[in-house]
Amino acid sequence: MDKLQGIDDAIRRYYDTAPFVVSESLIEAILYSVDAGGKRIRPLLLLELLEGFGVTLTDAHYDVAAALEMIHTGSLIHDDLPAMDNDDYRRGRLTSHKQYDEATAILAGDSLFLDPFGLLAKAQLPAHILIRLVKELSAASGTFGMVGGQMLDMQAEGQKLDVIELSIIHANKTGQLLAFPFMAAGLITEQEEKITQRLHQAGLLIGHAFQVRDDILDLTASFDQLGKTPQKDLQAQKSTYPSLLGLEQSYFVLNDSLDQAQRIFADLHQRVGFDATTIHDMIERLRLNA
Amino acid sequence: MDKLQGIDDAIRRYYDTAPFVVSESLIEAILYSVDAGGKRIRPLLLLELLEGFGVTLTDAHYDVAAALEMIHTGSLIHDDLPAMDNDDYRRGRLTSHKQYDEATAILAGDSLFLDPFGLLAKAQLPAHILIRLVKELSAASGTFGMVGGQMLDMQAEGQKLDVIELSIIHANKTGQLLAFPFMAAGLITEQEEKITQRLHQAGLLIGHAFQVRDDILDLTASFDQLGKTPQKDLQAQKSTYPSLLGLEQSYFVLNDSLDQAQRIFADLHQRVGFDATTIHDMIERLRLNA
Repeated sequence: MDKLQGIDDAIRRYYDTAPFVVSESLIEAILYSVDAGGKRIRPLLLLELLEGFGVTLTDAHYDVAAALEMIHTGSLIHDDLPAMDNDDYRRGRLTSHKQYDEATAILAGDSLFLDPFGLLAKAQLPAHILIRLVKELSAASGTFGMVGGQMLDMQAEGQKLDVIELSIIHANKTGQLLAFPFMAAGLITEQEEKITQRLHQAGLLIGHAFQVRDDILDLTASFDQLGKTPQKDLQAQKSTYPSLLGLEQSYFVLNDSLDQAQRIFADLHQRVGFDATTIHDMIERLRLNA
Repeated sequence: MDKLQGIDDAIRRYYDTAPFVVSESLIEAILYSVDAGGKRIRPLLLLELLEGFGVTLTDAHYDVAAALEMIHTGSLIHDDLPAMDNDDYRRGRLTSHKQYDEATAILAGDSLFLDPFGLLAKAQLPAHILIRLVKELSAASGTFGMVGGQMLDMQAEGQKLDVIELSIIHANKTGQLLAFPFMAAGLITEQEEKITQRLHQAGLLIGHAFQVRDDILDLTASFDQLGKTPQKDLQAQKSTYPSLLGLEQSYFVLNDSLDQAQRIFADLHQRVGFDATTIHDMIERLRLNA
Protein backbone atom coordinates (compact mmCIF):
# COMPACT_ATOMS: atom_id res chain seq x y z
CA MET A 1 0.00 0.00 0.00
CA ASP A 2 1.26 3.38 -1.07
CA LYS A 3 0.61 5.29 2.17
CA LEU A 4 2.46 2.74 4.28
CA GLN A 5 5.48 3.15 2.02
CA GLY A 6 5.20 6.92 2.29
CA ILE A 7 5.30 6.81 6.09
CA ASP A 8 8.29 4.48 6.04
CA ASP A 9 10.07 6.71 3.50
CA ALA A 10 9.54 9.80 5.65
CA ILE A 11 11.19 8.12 8.64
CA ARG A 12 14.13 6.91 6.55
CA ARG A 13 14.50 10.31 4.89
CA TYR A 14 14.98 11.82 8.36
CA TYR A 15 17.76 9.40 9.27
CA ASP A 16 19.36 9.78 5.84
CA THR A 17 20.07 13.42 6.69
CA ALA A 18 22.52 12.21 9.37
CA PRO A 19 25.69 14.30 9.67
CA PHE A 20 28.94 12.63 8.69
CA VAL A 21 29.54 11.05 12.07
CA VAL A 22 26.64 9.29 13.68
CA SER A 23 26.06 6.01 15.46
CA GLU A 24 25.00 3.65 12.69
CA SER A 25 24.16 1.01 15.31
CA LEU A 26 21.69 3.36 16.96
CA ILE A 27 19.95 4.06 13.66
CA GLU A 28 19.95 0.30 12.95
CA ALA A 29 18.23 -0.37 16.29
CA ILE A 30 15.72 2.43 15.66
CA LEU A 31 14.83 1.12 12.19
CA TYR A 32 14.62 -2.48 13.47
CA SER A 33 11.72 -1.44 15.67
CA VAL A 34 10.20 0.90 13.10
CA ASP A 35 10.18 -2.04 10.65
CA ALA A 36 8.66 -4.45 13.16
CA GLY A 37 5.40 -4.62 11.25
CA GLY A 38 3.20 -2.19 13.14
CA LYS A 39 -0.13 -1.49 11.50
CA ARG A 40 0.59 2.27 11.35
CA ILE A 41 -2.94 2.97 12.55
CA ARG A 42 -2.18 6.47 13.87
CA PRO A 43 -0.35 7.85 10.82
CA LEU A 44 -2.83 6.21 8.42
CA LEU A 45 -5.71 7.83 10.28
CA LEU A 46 -4.02 11.21 9.85
CA LEU A 47 -3.51 10.72 6.11
CA GLU A 48 -7.07 9.44 5.55
CA LEU A 49 -8.52 12.33 7.54
CA LEU A 50 -6.51 14.86 5.55
CA GLU A 51 -7.77 13.33 2.31
CA GLY A 52 -11.29 13.53 3.73
CA PHE A 53 -10.72 17.29 3.94
CA GLY A 54 -9.68 17.31 0.28
CA VAL A 55 -5.96 17.71 0.94
CA THR A 56 -3.50 16.45 -1.68
CA LEU A 57 -0.88 14.68 0.41
CA THR A 58 2.70 15.98 0.27
CA ASP A 59 5.96 15.05 2.02
CA ALA A 60 5.03 17.51 4.80
CA HIS A 61 1.97 15.44 5.73
CA TYR A 62 4.00 12.25 5.66
CA ASP A 63 6.55 13.95 7.95
CA VAL A 64 3.83 14.64 10.54
CA ALA A 65 2.53 11.09 10.17
CA ALA A 66 6.06 9.71 10.56
CA ALA A 67 6.75 11.78 13.70
CA LEU A 68 3.61 10.35 15.30
CA GLU A 69 4.56 6.76 14.42
CA MET A 70 8.09 7.28 15.79
CA ILE A 71 6.80 8.28 19.23
CA HIS A 72 4.45 5.29 19.26
CA THR A 73 7.36 3.00 18.32
CA GLY A 74 9.59 4.49 21.04
CA SER A 75 6.90 3.78 23.62
CA LEU A 76 6.66 0.14 22.54
CA ILE A 77 10.45 -0.31 22.91
CA HIS A 78 10.40 1.08 26.46
CA ASP A 79 7.19 -0.83 27.37
CA ASP A 80 8.89 -4.10 26.49
CA LEU A 81 11.94 -3.48 28.75
CA PRO A 82 12.58 -5.92 31.62
CA ALA A 83 11.73 -3.23 34.21
CA MET A 84 8.41 -2.62 32.45
CA ASP A 85 6.40 -5.45 30.79
CA ASN A 86 9.46 -7.64 30.23
CA ASP A 87 8.40 -8.95 26.83
CA ASP A 88 10.86 -10.94 24.71
CA TYR A 89 8.75 -10.91 21.56
CA ARG A 90 6.52 -8.45 19.76
CA ARG A 91 4.73 -9.49 16.56
CA GLY A 92 6.86 -12.62 16.44
CA ARG A 93 10.19 -10.76 16.41
CA LEU A 94 12.61 -10.30 19.29
CA THR A 95 12.03 -7.06 21.18
CA SER A 96 14.76 -4.42 20.98
CA HIS A 97 16.49 -5.31 24.26
CA LYS A 98 16.60 -9.01 23.26
CA GLN A 99 17.78 -8.34 19.71
CA TYR A 100 20.43 -5.85 20.93
CA ASP A 101 20.76 -5.13 24.65
CA GLU A 102 18.96 -3.11 27.28
CA ALA A 103 21.15 -0.01 26.98
CA THR A 104 20.60 0.08 23.21
CA ALA A 105 16.84 -0.32 23.66
CA ILE A 106 16.74 2.53 26.18
CA LEU A 107 18.69 4.80 23.81
CA ALA A 108 16.67 3.79 20.73
CA GLY A 109 13.48 4.67 22.60
CA ASP A 110 14.99 7.97 23.76
CA SER A 111 15.88 8.82 20.16
CA LEU A 112 12.36 8.03 19.04
CA PHE A 113 11.05 10.55 21.58
CA LEU A 114 13.55 13.32 20.78
CA ASP A 115 13.91 13.02 16.99
CA PRO A 116 10.23 13.36 15.91
CA PHE A 117 10.06 16.97 17.07
CA GLY A 118 13.00 17.81 14.81
CA LEU A 119 11.26 16.00 11.96
CA LEU A 120 8.03 17.93 12.64
CA ALA A 121 9.93 21.22 12.79
CA LYS A 122 11.38 20.55 9.32
CA ALA A 123 8.02 19.83 7.69
CA GLN A 124 7.05 22.33 4.99
CA LEU A 125 3.99 23.75 6.74
CA PRO A 126 3.37 27.27 8.12
CA ALA A 127 5.25 27.87 11.40
CA HIS A 128 2.10 28.63 13.42
CA ILE A 129 0.64 25.25 12.45
CA LEU A 130 3.88 23.42 13.21
CA ILE A 131 4.07 24.99 16.67
CA ARG A 132 0.53 23.84 17.46
CA LEU A 133 1.41 20.32 16.23
CA VAL A 134 4.55 20.27 18.43
CA LYS A 135 2.53 21.41 21.43
CA GLU A 136 -0.25 18.86 20.93
CA LEU A 137 2.12 15.95 20.14
CA SER A 138 4.13 16.69 23.28
CA ALA A 139 0.97 16.92 25.40
CA ALA A 140 -0.45 13.68 23.97
CA SER A 141 2.76 11.76 24.58
CA GLY A 142 4.44 13.14 27.74
CA THR A 143 3.40 13.52 31.37
CA PHE A 144 -0.07 14.78 30.46
CA GLY A 145 -0.64 11.93 27.99
CA MET A 146 0.89 8.55 27.18
CA VAL A 147 3.74 8.49 29.72
CA GLY A 148 1.49 9.76 32.51
CA GLY A 149 -1.07 7.09 31.58
CA GLN A 150 1.54 4.34 31.72
CA MET A 151 2.49 5.49 35.19
CA LEU A 152 -1.18 5.46 36.28
CA ASP A 153 -1.57 1.99 34.79
CA MET A 154 1.49 0.72 36.67
CA GLN A 155 0.23 2.16 39.94
CA ALA A 156 -3.17 0.53 39.39
CA GLU A 157 -1.69 -2.96 39.18
CA GLY A 158 -3.31 -5.31 41.67
CA GLN A 159 -5.93 -2.70 42.51
CA LYS A 160 -9.63 -3.04 41.83
CA LEU A 161 -10.59 -0.12 39.59
CA ASP A 162 -14.00 1.23 38.73
CA VAL A 163 -14.94 1.86 35.11
CA ILE A 164 -14.28 5.63 35.35
CA GLU A 165 -10.74 5.04 36.65
CA LEU A 166 -10.15 2.48 33.92
CA SER A 167 -11.33 4.90 31.21
CA ILE A 168 -9.11 7.69 32.52
CA ILE A 169 -6.02 5.48 32.55
CA HIS A 170 -6.66 4.35 28.99
CA ALA A 171 -7.58 7.84 27.76
CA ASN A 172 -4.09 8.92 28.82
CA LYS A 173 -2.09 5.78 28.08
CA THR A 174 -3.36 5.17 24.56
CA GLY A 175 -6.32 7.47 23.88
CA GLN A 176 -4.57 10.79 23.49
CA LEU A 177 -1.92 9.61 21.04
CA LEU A 178 -4.67 7.89 19.04
CA ALA A 179 -6.69 11.11 19.09
CA PHE A 180 -3.71 13.21 17.97
CA PRO A 181 -4.16 12.53 14.21
CA PHE A 182 -7.77 13.74 14.45
CA MET A 183 -6.76 17.01 16.08
CA ALA A 184 -3.75 17.31 13.74
CA ALA A 185 -5.99 16.98 10.69
CA GLY A 186 -8.04 19.92 11.97
CA LEU A 187 -4.92 21.99 12.65
CA ILE A 188 -3.27 21.26 9.31
CA THR A 189 -6.41 22.13 7.37
CA GLU A 190 -6.91 25.22 9.56
CA GLN A 191 -10.42 24.43 10.69
CA GLU A 192 -12.11 26.63 13.26
CA GLU A 193 -11.04 25.64 16.77
CA LYS A 194 -14.55 24.27 17.46
CA ILE A 195 -14.25 21.85 14.52
CA THR A 196 -10.75 20.78 15.60
CA GLN A 197 -12.09 20.06 19.08
CA ARG A 198 -14.94 17.97 17.59
CA LEU A 199 -12.39 16.00 15.61
CA HIS A 200 -10.36 15.46 18.77
CA GLN A 201 -13.51 14.26 20.54
CA ALA A 202 -14.11 11.73 17.74
CA GLY A 203 -10.51 10.58 18.13
CA LEU A 204 -10.94 10.04 21.87
CA LEU A 205 -14.12 8.04 21.24
CA ILE A 206 -12.33 5.84 18.73
CA GLY A 207 -9.40 5.46 21.14
CA HIS A 208 -11.87 4.35 23.79
CA ALA A 209 -13.48 1.91 21.36
CA PHE A 210 -10.05 0.44 20.53
CA GLN A 211 -9.39 -0.30 24.19
CA VAL A 212 -12.81 -1.86 24.87
CA ARG A 213 -12.34 -3.93 21.71
CA ASP A 214 -8.90 -5.13 22.83
CA ASP A 215 -10.31 -6.17 26.20
CA ILE A 216 -13.18 -8.07 24.56
CA LEU A 217 -10.90 -9.82 22.08
CA ASP A 218 -8.45 -10.79 24.81
CA LEU A 219 -11.31 -12.68 26.43
CA THR A 220 -13.05 -14.16 23.38
CA ALA A 221 -10.49 -14.64 20.60
CA SER A 222 -8.20 -17.58 20.01
CA PHE A 223 -4.42 -17.37 19.72
CA ASP A 224 -4.70 -17.55 15.90
CA GLN A 225 -7.23 -14.73 15.68
CA LEU A 226 -5.22 -12.59 18.09
CA GLY A 227 -1.65 -13.38 17.01
CA LYS A 228 -0.71 -13.51 20.69
CA THR A 229 -1.66 -15.41 23.84
CA PRO A 230 -5.31 -14.70 24.70
CA GLN A 231 -6.74 -14.22 28.18
CA LYS A 232 -3.55 -12.56 29.44
CA ASP A 233 -5.64 -9.92 31.22
CA LEU A 234 -7.69 -12.60 32.99
CA GLN A 235 -4.55 -14.39 34.14
CA ALA A 236 -2.99 -11.11 35.29
CA GLN A 237 -6.28 -10.28 37.08
CA LYS A 238 -6.27 -6.90 35.38
CA SER A 239 -9.34 -4.70 35.49
CA THR A 240 -10.86 -4.68 32.01
CA TYR A 241 -14.14 -3.53 30.53
CA PRO A 242 -15.55 -7.10 30.42
CA SER A 243 -14.41 -7.78 34.00
CA LEU A 244 -16.10 -4.60 35.24
CA LEU A 245 -19.14 -4.39 32.96
CA GLY A 246 -19.65 -7.94 31.74
CA LEU A 247 -19.27 -9.00 28.13
CA GLU A 248 -22.69 -7.93 26.85
CA GLN A 249 -22.40 -4.40 28.23
CA SER A 250 -18.85 -4.16 26.84
CA TYR A 251 -20.13 -4.89 23.32
CA PHE A 252 -22.71 -2.15 23.87
CA VAL A 253 -20.08 0.38 25.05
CA LEU A 254 -17.82 -0.43 22.09
CA ASN A 255 -20.54 -0.01 19.50
CA ASP A 256 -21.99 3.05 21.21
CA SER A 257 -18.58 4.82 21.13
CA LEU A 258 -18.31 4.03 17.43
CA ASP A 259 -21.86 5.33 16.84
CA GLN A 260 -20.98 8.60 18.56
CA ALA A 261 -17.83 8.97 16.45
CA GLN A 262 -19.83 8.29 13.26
CA ARG A 263 -22.31 10.99 14.23
CA ILE A 264 -19.47 13.51 14.60
CA PHE A 265 -18.20 12.70 11.11
CA ALA A 266 -21.71 12.87 9.64
CA ASP A 267 -22.02 16.29 11.24
CA LEU A 268 -18.61 17.38 9.88
CA HIS A 269 -19.76 16.27 6.44
CA GLN A 270 -22.76 18.57 6.77
CA ARG A 271 -20.90 21.52 8.23
CA VAL A 272 -17.55 21.61 6.44
CA GLY A 273 -17.98 19.12 3.59
CA PHE A 274 -15.70 16.50 5.12
CA ASP A 275 -15.75 13.35 2.96
CA ALA A 276 -16.24 10.66 5.59
CA THR A 277 -16.33 7.63 3.24
CA THR A 278 -12.99 6.06 4.15
CA ILE A 279 -13.05 6.95 7.83
CA HIS A 280 -16.62 5.61 8.01
CA ASP A 281 -15.44 2.24 6.72
CA MET A 282 -12.43 2.22 9.07
CA ILE A 283 -14.75 2.82 12.01
CA GLU A 284 -17.25 0.16 10.93
CA ARG A 285 -14.47 -2.44 10.83
CA LEU A 286 -13.93 -1.93 14.58
CA ARG A 287 -17.41 -3.22 15.49
CA LEU A 288 -17.84 -6.52 17.30
CA ASN A 289 -21.09 -8.33 17.94
CA ALA A 290 -21.87 -10.96 20.54
CA MET B 1 20.33 33.52 42.92
CA ASP B 2 17.45 34.95 40.97
CA LYS B 3 18.06 33.22 37.64
CA LEU B 4 18.25 29.78 39.26
CA GLN B 5 14.88 30.40 40.86
CA GLY B 6 13.47 31.57 37.55
CA ILE B 7 14.52 28.34 35.81
CA ASP B 8 13.03 26.26 38.60
CA ASP B 9 9.80 28.27 38.51
CA ALA B 10 9.45 27.77 34.75
CA ILE B 11 9.68 23.99 35.14
CA ARG B 12 7.15 23.98 38.00
CA ARG B 13 4.82 26.31 36.10
CA TYR B 14 4.71 23.74 33.31
CA TYR B 15 3.72 20.90 35.62
CA ASP B 16 1.23 23.13 37.46
CA THR B 17 -0.78 23.32 34.23
CA ALA B 18 -1.54 19.61 34.62
CA PRO B 19 -5.07 18.60 33.63
CA PHE B 20 -7.35 17.36 36.40
CA VAL B 21 -6.19 13.77 36.23
CA VAL B 22 -2.47 13.18 36.06
CA SER B 23 0.01 10.87 37.74
CA GLU B 24 1.19 12.88 40.74
CA SER B 25 3.85 10.22 41.41
CA LEU B 26 5.32 10.75 37.96
CA ILE B 27 5.55 14.51 38.51
CA GLU B 28 7.06 13.86 41.95
CA ALA B 29 9.77 11.66 40.40
CA ILE B 30 10.44 14.25 37.68
CA LEU B 31 10.81 17.09 40.19
CA TYR B 32 12.97 14.93 42.49
CA SER B 33 15.58 14.77 39.73
CA VAL B 34 15.07 18.39 38.64
CA ASP B 35 15.72 19.43 42.26
CA ALA B 36 18.83 17.24 42.59
CA GLY B 37 21.11 20.27 42.74
CA GLY B 38 22.39 20.51 39.20
CA LYS B 39 24.40 23.62 38.48
CA ARG B 40 22.04 24.66 35.65
CA ILE B 41 25.05 25.50 33.48
CA ARG B 42 23.19 25.25 30.17
CA PRO B 43 20.14 27.38 31.04
CA LEU B 44 22.31 29.94 32.87
CA LEU B 45 24.52 30.26 29.80
CA LEU B 46 21.44 30.97 27.70
CA LEU B 47 20.16 33.65 30.06
CA GLU B 48 23.60 35.33 30.40
CA LEU B 49 24.07 35.30 26.63
CA LEU B 50 20.65 36.88 26.08
CA GLU B 51 21.51 39.61 28.57
CA GLY B 52 24.79 40.11 26.74
CA PHE B 53 22.66 40.93 23.68
CA GLY B 54 20.74 43.48 25.74
CA VAL B 55 17.59 41.37 26.15
CA THR B 56 15.36 42.01 29.17
CA LEU B 57 14.54 38.50 30.34
CA THR B 58 10.89 37.40 30.34
CA ASP B 59 9.06 34.16 31.18
CA ALA B 60 9.50 33.10 27.55
CA HIS B 61 13.31 33.04 27.93
CA TYR B 62 13.02 31.11 31.16
CA ASP B 63 10.74 28.63 29.35
CA VAL B 64 13.43 27.96 26.74
CA ALA B 65 16.06 27.67 29.50
CA ALA B 66 13.81 25.28 31.44
CA ALA B 67 13.18 23.07 28.40
CA LEU B 68 16.93 22.70 27.91
CA GLU B 69 17.52 21.80 31.56
CA MET B 70 14.70 19.24 31.45
CA ILE B 71 16.29 17.32 28.59
CA HIS B 72 19.66 17.38 30.37
CA THR B 73 17.97 16.05 33.55
CA GLY B 74 16.20 13.29 31.62
CA SER B 75 19.50 12.16 30.17
CA LEU B 76 21.06 11.93 33.65
CA ILE B 77 18.18 9.76 34.90
CA HIS B 78 18.58 7.32 32.01
CA ASP B 79 22.42 7.40 32.23
CA ASP B 80 22.23 6.25 35.84
CA LEU B 81 20.01 3.22 35.08
CA PRO B 82 21.38 -0.26 35.88
CA ALA B 83 21.63 -1.12 32.16
CA MET B 84 23.65 2.06 31.56
CA ASP B 85 26.16 3.41 34.15
CA ASN B 86 24.39 1.72 37.10
CA ASP B 87 24.95 4.58 39.55
CA ASP B 88 23.18 4.55 42.92
CA TYR B 89 24.07 8.12 43.85
CA ARG B 90 24.32 11.45 42.05
CA ARG B 91 25.40 14.55 43.97
CA GLY B 92 25.00 12.65 47.23
CA ARG B 93 21.33 11.76 46.63
CA LEU B 94 19.88 8.44 45.53
CA THR B 95 19.43 8.22 41.78
CA SER B 96 15.87 8.02 40.46
CA HIS B 97 15.74 4.24 40.08
CA LYS B 98 17.04 3.77 43.66
CA GLN B 99 14.74 6.41 45.17
CA TYR B 100 11.74 5.00 43.26
CA ASP B 101 12.16 2.01 40.95
CA GLU B 102 13.50 1.33 37.48
CA ALA B 103 10.17 1.61 35.69
CA THR B 104 9.52 5.00 37.30
CA ALA B 105 13.01 6.21 36.35
CA ILE B 106 12.49 5.14 32.73
CA LEU B 107 9.14 6.94 32.56
CA ALA B 108 10.43 10.08 34.34
CA GLY B 109 13.25 10.31 31.79
CA ASP B 110 10.80 9.74 28.94
CA SER B 111 8.64 12.59 30.23
CA LEU B 112 11.67 14.86 30.46
CA PHE B 113 12.33 14.19 26.76
CA LEU B 114 8.74 14.64 25.57
CA ASP B 115 7.51 17.51 27.77
CA PRO B 116 10.14 20.18 26.98
CA PHE B 117 8.96 20.51 23.38
CA GLY B 118 5.48 21.31 24.65
CA LEU B 119 6.96 23.84 27.04
CA LEU B 120 8.99 25.40 24.20
CA ALA B 121 5.93 25.53 21.93
CA LYS B 122 4.02 27.49 24.61
CA ALA B 123 6.74 30.13 25.04
CA GLN B 124 5.66 33.64 24.03
CA LEU B 125 8.08 34.07 21.13
CA PRO B 126 7.39 34.38 17.38
CA ALA B 127 6.45 31.01 15.82
CA HIS B 128 9.33 31.05 13.30
CA ILE B 129 11.85 31.37 16.16
CA LEU B 130 10.14 28.65 18.21
CA ILE B 131 10.24 26.26 15.28
CA ARG B 132 14.00 26.80 14.84
CA LEU B 133 14.50 26.25 18.59
CA VAL B 134 12.49 23.00 18.44
CA LYS B 135 14.52 21.82 15.46
CA GLU B 136 17.90 22.65 17.03
CA LEU B 137 17.01 21.26 20.48
CA SER B 138 15.86 18.00 18.89
CA ALA B 139 19.01 17.76 16.78
CA ALA B 140 21.28 18.52 19.77
CA SER B 141 19.62 15.90 21.96
CA GLY B 142 18.49 13.00 19.75
CA THR B 143 20.20 10.60 17.36
CA PHE B 144 22.31 13.36 15.81
CA GLY B 145 23.40 14.70 19.19
CA MET B 146 23.40 13.54 22.80
CA VAL B 147 21.74 10.13 22.42
CA GLY B 148 23.86 9.28 19.38
CA GLY B 149 26.97 10.32 21.33
CA GLN B 150 26.05 8.09 24.24
CA MET B 151 25.71 5.19 21.86
CA LEU B 152 29.12 5.94 20.30
CA ASP B 153 30.62 6.21 23.80
CA MET B 154 29.13 2.84 24.80
CA GLN B 155 30.45 1.20 21.65
CA ALA B 156 33.92 2.64 22.31
CA GLU B 157 34.19 0.97 25.72
CA GLY B 158 37.32 -1.13 25.99
CA GLN B 159 38.59 0.24 22.67
CA LYS B 160 41.67 2.37 22.27
CA LEU B 161 40.52 5.63 20.68
CA ASP B 162 42.54 8.35 19.01
CA VAL B 163 42.03 11.96 19.98
CA ILE B 164 39.82 12.73 16.97
CA GLU B 165 37.48 9.87 17.80
CA LEU B 166 37.37 10.98 21.42
CA SER B 167 36.49 14.56 20.41
CA ILE B 168 33.74 13.41 18.10
CA ILE B 169 32.14 11.24 20.77
CA HIS B 170 32.17 14.10 23.26
CA ALA B 171 31.03 16.69 20.72
CA ASN B 172 27.90 14.57 20.29
CA LYS B 173 27.42 13.23 23.81
CA THR B 174 27.77 16.53 25.68
CA GLY B 175 29.04 19.21 23.29
CA GLN B 176 25.94 19.83 21.22
CA LEU B 177 23.55 20.26 24.13
CA LEU B 178 26.09 22.60 25.76
CA ALA B 179 26.34 24.54 22.51
CA PHE B 180 22.55 24.79 22.16
CA PRO B 181 22.18 27.88 24.44
CA PHE B 182 24.74 29.72 22.28
CA MET B 183 22.85 29.01 19.08
CA ALA B 184 19.52 29.67 20.83
CA ALA B 185 20.72 33.11 21.97
CA GLY B 186 21.46 33.96 18.33
CA LEU B 187 18.07 32.66 17.17
CA ILE B 188 16.06 34.42 19.87
CA THR B 189 17.78 37.76 19.21
CA GLU B 190 17.38 37.20 15.46
CA GLN B 191 21.04 37.60 14.57
CA GLU B 192 22.20 36.99 11.02
CA GLU B 193 22.73 33.26 10.41
CA LYS B 194 26.52 33.85 10.23
CA ILE B 195 26.53 35.33 13.74
CA THR B 196 24.38 32.48 15.08
CA GLN B 197 26.81 29.98 13.60
CA ARG B 198 29.76 31.82 15.23
CA LEU B 199 27.93 31.62 18.56
CA HIS B 200 27.36 27.92 18.02
CA GLN B 201 31.06 27.50 17.28
CA ALA B 202 31.94 29.24 20.56
CA GLY B 203 29.54 26.89 22.34
CA LEU B 204 31.18 23.82 20.82
CA LEU B 205 34.62 25.12 21.90
CA ILE B 206 33.38 25.63 25.45
CA GLY B 207 31.78 22.20 25.42
CA HIS B 208 35.11 20.77 24.32
CA ALA B 209 36.88 22.69 27.10
CA PHE B 210 34.42 21.31 29.67
CA GLN B 211 35.23 17.75 28.65
CA VAL B 212 39.02 18.21 28.67
CA ARG B 213 38.67 19.92 32.06
CA ASP B 214 36.60 17.02 33.46
CA ASP B 215 39.21 14.55 32.27
CA ILE B 216 42.06 16.57 33.86
CA LEU B 217 40.20 16.98 37.16
CA ASP B 218 39.34 13.30 37.29
CA LEU B 219 43.09 12.63 37.27
CA THR B 220 44.36 15.44 39.50
CA ALA B 221 41.63 16.41 41.96
CA SER B 222 40.86 14.85 45.34
CA PHE B 223 37.47 13.45 46.35
CA ASP B 224 36.71 16.67 48.29
CA GLN B 225 37.51 18.94 45.36
CA LEU B 226 35.52 16.78 42.96
CA GLY B 227 32.56 15.76 45.14
CA LYS B 228 32.85 12.26 43.70
CA THR B 229 35.39 9.45 43.48
CA PRO B 230 38.42 10.65 41.46
CA GLN B 231 40.41 8.59 38.97
CA LYS B 232 37.30 6.68 37.87
CA ASP B 233 38.37 7.03 34.22
CA LEU B 234 41.80 5.59 35.03
CA GLN B 235 40.26 2.62 36.79
CA ALA B 236 37.81 2.06 33.94
CA GLN B 237 40.73 2.37 31.48
CA LYS B 238 38.71 4.88 29.51
CA SER B 239 40.36 6.91 26.79
CA THR B 240 40.66 10.50 28.06
CA TYR B 241 42.52 13.58 26.91
CA PRO B 242 45.29 13.11 29.52
CA SER B 243 45.63 9.41 28.67
CA LEU B 244 45.98 10.23 24.96
CA LEU B 245 47.83 13.58 25.06
CA GLY B 246 49.50 13.63 28.45
CA LEU B 247 48.61 16.07 31.18
CA GLU B 248 50.67 19.04 29.96
CA GLN B 249 49.21 18.96 26.46
CA SER B 250 45.71 18.56 27.93
CA TYR B 251 46.13 21.80 29.89
CA PHE B 252 47.23 23.44 26.64
CA VAL B 253 44.20 22.12 24.72
CA LEU B 254 41.81 23.27 27.46
CA ASN B 255 43.18 26.79 27.60
CA ASP B 256 43.51 27.04 23.83
CA SER B 257 39.81 26.16 23.37
CA LEU B 258 38.89 28.83 25.90
CA ASP B 259 41.13 31.37 24.11
CA GLN B 260 39.39 30.63 20.82
CA ALA B 261 35.97 31.07 22.44
CA GLN B 262 37.06 34.36 23.99
CA ARG B 263 38.21 35.60 20.59
CA ILE B 264 34.78 34.85 19.12
CA PHE B 265 33.09 36.88 21.85
CA ALA B 266 35.56 39.76 21.45
CA ASP B 267 34.71 39.71 17.75
CA LEU B 268 30.95 39.65 18.48
CA HIS B 269 31.44 42.63 20.74
CA GLN B 270 33.04 44.52 17.85
CA ARG B 271 30.54 43.42 15.23
CA VAL B 272 27.15 43.40 16.96
CA GLY B 273 27.85 45.14 20.28
CA PHE B 274 27.55 41.96 22.34
CA ASP B 275 28.41 42.73 26.00
CA ALA B 276 30.80 39.89 26.79
CA THR B 277 31.58 40.85 30.42
CA THR B 278 29.72 38.04 32.21
CA ILE B 279 30.43 35.33 29.65
CA HIS B 280 34.11 36.37 29.68
CA ASP B 281 34.27 35.76 33.43
CA MET B 282 32.39 32.44 33.14
CA ILE B 283 34.91 31.28 30.54
CA GLU B 284 37.93 32.40 32.58
CA ARG B 285 36.74 30.35 35.55
CA LEU B 286 37.09 27.21 33.44
CA ARG B 287 40.87 27.60 33.10
CA LEU B 288 43.22 25.18 34.83
CA ASN B 289 46.97 25.53 35.10
CA ALA B 290 49.54 22.86 35.83
